[in-house]
Amino acid sequence: MIQEIAQIDVKAGMEAEFEKGVAAAAPLFRRARGCHGMRLSRSIEKPRRYRLFVDWESVDDHNVGFRGSEDFKQWRALVGHCFETPPEVEHVSETLRGF
Amino acid sequence: MIQEIAQIDVKAGMEAEFEKGVAAAAPLFRRARGCHGMRLSRSIEKPRRYRLFVDWESVDDHNVGFRGSEDFKQWRALVGHCFETPPEVEHVSETLRGF
Repeated sequence: MIQEIAQIDVKAGMEAEFEKGVAAAAPLFRRARGCHGMRLSRSIEKPRRYRLFVDWESVDDHNVGFRGSEDFKQWRALVGHCFETPPEVEHVSETLRGF
Repeated sequence: MIQEIAQIDVKAGMEAEFEKGVAAAAPLFRRARGCHGMRLSRSIEKPRRYRLFVDWESVDDHNVGFRGSEDFKQWRALVGHCFETPPEVEHVSETLRGF
């Protein structure tokens, strides 16, 4: 299992619309192949910065499967107009769970 | 509850030492006031980039309590020499748990 971290800066004043769009998009992720979880966090220091964390079985499930799907277009239709800049996307794997 | 995200770029060749240092530091976080969890992830695209996720009751438990403690010096003694650049630290709060 790996985790996608998408850092998303949202246009001023569009925070509520963005959050609503992410909530509406949850079913798209839920039915995506290899997707096991999704949550959204908001930066305290930079309140227009969000991080979307998505758990995937593999990087390809995200980069190939989801990004190549019709649901990806729906995802972007729901939230893309709120982006101030293109999201910065990275994938990580857990190396230690301290406690 | 909030989460600290520390993005840490490690010097080439020091990845194993860094991971060992983080594991050794787990007890320092475990006994820190207001600290409820800690885990380390490694970037797949940039393998010298790590993210330390630490769950705190408040930003002050991290910024004031932990950073002002002797244990913080121990933490830095365990891992600080592995840092390529100063860590980029941010705090986030969860706004949505999709599933």
